[in-house]
Amino acid sequence: MPAFVPSVFLGRAPTTSSLFCPAVTSLRVVPRGVPSQRVTPAMMAAPTVLEERAKAADFSTACFTKEEITLAGTTEYIVRGGRDVFPALPKAFTGVKKVGVIGWGSQGPAQAQNLRDSFQDAGVDATVTIGLREGSSSMKEAEKAGFTKESGTLGEMYKVISDSDFVVLLISDAATAMCYKDVFKAMKPGATLGLSHGFLLGHMDSIGESFPEDINVILVAPKGMGPSVRRLYVQGKTENGAGINCSFAVENDATGTATDLAIGWAIAIGAPFCFQTTLRNEYRSDIFGERCILLGAIHGICESLWRRFVMQGMDQEEAFIRSTESITGPLSQIISKRGIKAVYEDMNDADKAVFAKSYCAAYEPAYEIVIECYEDVACGNEIRSVINSGMRAKRFPVISPIDGTQMWKVGETVRSKRSSSPPPPVDPFAAGVYCATMMAQIDVLLEKGHVLSEIINESVIESVDSLSPYLHARGVAYMVFNCSFTAATGSKKWAPRFDYNLTQRAYTAIDNEDSLNTGLMDEFLNHKIHPAIAECAKLRPSVDIALTGSGADDAARSNL
Amino acid sequence: MPAFVPSVFLGRAPTTSSLFCPAVTSLRVVPRGVPSQRVTPAMMAAPTVLEERAKAADFSTACFTKEEITLAGTTEYIVRGGRDVFPALPKAFTGVKKVGVIGWGSQGPAQAQNLRDSFQDAGVDATVTIGLREGSSSMKEAEKAGFTKESGTLGEMYKVISDSDFVVLLISDAATAMCYKDVFKAMKPGATLGLSHGFLLGHMDSIGESFPEDINVILVAPKGMGPSVRRLYVQGKTENGAGINCSFAVENDATGTATDLAIGWAIAIGAPFCFQTTLRNEYRSDIFGERCILLGAIHGICESLWRRFVMQGMDQEEAFIRSTESITGPLSQIISKRGIKAVYEDMNDADKAVFAKSYCAAYEPAYEIVIECYEDVACGNEIRSVINSGMRAKRFPVISPIDGTQMWKVGETVRSKRSSSPPPPVDPFAAGVYCATMMAQIDVLLEKGHVLSEIINESVIESVDSLSPYLHARGVAYMVFNCSFTAATGSKKWAPRFDYNLTQRAYTAIDNEDSLNTGLMDEFLNHKIHPAIAECAKLRPSVDIALTGSGADDAARSNL
Repeated sequence: MPAFVPSVFLGRAPTTSSLFCPAVTSLRVVPRGVPSQRVTPAMMAAPTVLEERAKAADFSTACFTKEEITLAGTTEYIVRGGRDVFPALPKAFTGVKKVGVIGWGSQGPAQAQNLRDSFQDAGVDATVTIGLREGSSSMKEAEKAGFTKESGTLGEMYKVISDSDFVVLLISDAATAMCYKDVFKAMKPGATLGLSHGFLLGHMDSIGESFPEDINVILVAPKGMGPSVRRLYVQGKTENGAGINCSFAVENDATGTATDLAIGWAIAIGAPFCFQTTLRNEYRSDIFGERCILLGAIHGICESLWRRFVMQGMDQEEAFIRSTESITGPLSQIISKRGIKAVYEDMNDADKAVFAKSYCAAYEPAYEIVIECYEDVACGNEIRSVINSGMRAKRFPVISPIDGTQMWKVGETVRSKRSSSPPPPVDPFAAGVYCATMMAQIDVLLEKGHVLSEIINESVIESVDSLSPYLHARGVAYMVFNCSFTAATGSKKWAPRFDYNLTQRAYTAIDNEDSLNTGLMDEFLNHKIHPAIAECAKLRPSVDIALTGSGADDAARSNL
Repeated sequence: MPAFVPSVFLGRAPTTSSLFCPAVTSLRVVPRGVPSQRVTPAMMAAPTVLEERAKAADFSTACFTKEEITLAGTTEYIVRGGRDVFPALPKAFTGVKKVGVIGWGSQGPAQAQNLRDSFQDAGVDATVTIGLREGSSSMKEAEKAGFTKESGTLGEMYKVISDSDFVVLLISDAATAMCYKDVFKAMKPGATLGLSHGFLLGHMDSIGESFPEDINVILVAPKGMGPSVRRLYVQGKTENGAGINCSFAVENDATGTATDLAIGWAIAIGAPFCFQTTLRNEYRSDIFGERCILLGAIHGICESLWRRFVMQGMDQEEAFIRSTESITGPLSQIISKRGIKAVYEDMNDADKAVFAKSYCAAYEPAYEIVIECYEDVACGNEIRSVINSGMRAKRFPVISPIDGTQMWKVGETVRSKRSSSPPPPVDPFAAGVYCATMMAQIDVLLEKGHVLSEIINESVIESVDSLSPYLHARGVAYMVFNCSFTAATGSKKWAPRFDYNLTQRAYTAIDNEDSLNTGLMDEFLNHKIHPAIAECAKLRPSVDIALTGSGADDAARSNL
């Protein structure tokens, strides 16, 4: 209950909705658990999540083996990747002689190098060329990775685009939104535009535009940052199936071959497991997920927990271990290997009681921010906000010190002592808050109608297998700023929202011994997501991402 | 400088804008100090701030005395209110026999009672009737204030609307956005629609709609929450000129009398000083201002300062006094009476040095959030977000405990001891942070082209004379939740953003002894806003708002 609700105010607060007009009451009541897609003016024209799902319920492939999986009673179709599938790549890339990878940000270096290596290993007769703005400081970096002007594998972006059969557009979202018309103009008819994010469609939705009809438009969205895409691919060379899961989508199929090219692209960059989506559902779930549990929420949770523990008198290093190491270390490992429920099941009774309390206190405050975030993404606000940030980027770069505070300095110390310290325990309080937030994200995506493979990848697998390991190894700034501009902008924006709402509502409820909604624990323990996660876990990469923990090996990162 | 910028990353970060296409470079460079209005797709159709200014550069009044003022070299026209102008009210309200005040939230009770009292005192032959949703729990509250069904001064909202010559629509913004079409339909041709906020136009801008042409559309926007509008009006009955300043605007003048009616309305609710704006510039500056220094920023600043002081080992009560009491007490008083620069000029040399350091460290981090907020308001994002929140309000009410944390509990204790404590000192560190944020807001509004009267009211006067006194007297929740749904939603959203950015960037810069941009202090001391504030101060209400500090007199508040 609110600590402050003057009785005189309750009677006339516009905030209690009492002043909403009767005619629209039905719009405001969204029963929990029922898929719903609230329509705001800005998105009126865009198909809903469920309409998009119907569009992408099944697919045909001439090159790969489609497998049926059942997740919580729903059938989905996936394609398994791995190096043993590489022999199918030449056929999937039929007609593609020149691949232009445009941009050298987070995904660019990873995908370009993976494609080049896979083409060689699989005997695909195609070259990979990097396209950059003339004079870009990234030219040097691309050269270090072996793409050179001399060999014709590095050039000015529009020149590369007009030469390519397959354009993999990996510049930042904000930049994409500003130059896509020139990109379309430069492309050959019948060529394929590859995107790793549905952002551009989200932008075009909000201004009523659409893709040209004479090109293929496909998407492969790796469920991890670029460095992970490269790192796991390199590990996958000796461990078949190591790599980052990808969703794929076909928005335009001008040539009739777009689906196989999309799946081929995913497998060539190392996806052990590809699942189908649409550009719209991808941008809705992806832009949302990175603002929540993947980056923003985990950051805000760790900050709120560390501060709470320190204010309670805990030693600062111990507080870091219990707030952050606990989540990014053993907790993520358990979830990755055995699912979310195992976190609780592993605990003794005393810890279970602590977990249940923090879970029940945190779920609603987390849900409140999570659903706000989803709806701000779905109506186009977050996309517009990212474009605004892009236009300010010269004055206010997205990279700014987020880890110079006392907490993250302590974190550095903790990491430096790691080799001589015992592995951190799972802190039950921290675990309850983290799991509640992850479950809130899952529930919002279910409520909004997303498919389970997308939900599990965007809420669980990408988090514990791809992103948290970076937070664990090198701290919050490394994790956030190695993701896309869109992700980093959103993470900085939403992290403090989770921090405040948990601190103001969840922790005070516990401290005040308010009665908590304990039914939430039953819902957690009986949630349909758990068997679905177990099903997905079978499709997990065969190895963990290997990172050194020292943070001192930055130089080695260019090889990631 | 960022604490974390791996060299390998800088070369290929999408965040450095290096990947933006050359063709659009010019759009991204926004020189400081030059009025600019970046156009995003969503607002493409709406006139810019400067175009709106041109529309409202002057006005004619047949009933009141227009005065010319010069603020930083720019001429603006104002009308002075006060009870001695009341004799002009009957003429201004010509043709208005029935006024329907719709809604009983923050502004409704204040404006309805003020209008009723003024009509009586000034001999205006018009009745004030409250219109509410049938069955609204606010009916009882309105009855307590003397509006009854029996006397015909309380009724169902659409019935009241269709009976009224002048409809003052004061339901929440989110509700307004949902039922405005029915309101338009119910109104008599030639009647006047009165708004206290440009929000509805912002909403209609974003979906390409406009007001009906056969009604007047006017705005009077008091620069303070409803309870202040009532409280100062009551004080003004014995102190001529006490009241809350209002901006006014005429969007549609179907009858040719709209300007005088707008000014008359402002004076009748107690405005000591009315200045002209337009609905668009009002919603841009107002929705923005409440998210920044008026509510959101001051909340985030106080939280960040208290935590910093406590972490440095300061006693918790002392930390509250230095972080919050210091700002809401003596600092606000100085700014209110003698302007922003006087805060610095009053200090001894040691304090001046502390102020200068925190000012220079905080200005840019504050500016970064302030400009993000402005652009999110201007492109319609914040309006859409408020509408989204309104649709969730049943599940997630905007009123939630924001002051149950340790800091605000300590605040209660500090307030309870106030009568026996010495008045708090101005803490120079806190003062630097607060003044830097206020100046950043002023600079963003200047950069975006707003007029000085609007800037000063939305950034200075409303803050120190109307809102901070509530934070001082009764804490943060009282201040935030007695404002509109739009304001409270936005304050909760932006407060944590200021907190994080100041903590991450400003305070770390000071702790690391980074070299600061000391030129910012010169800019502060020589800023053109200071003489303009001094000019506006001459138009300040003749008395301060009188509030008891105990927080125990909630019952008395219904009379505010």
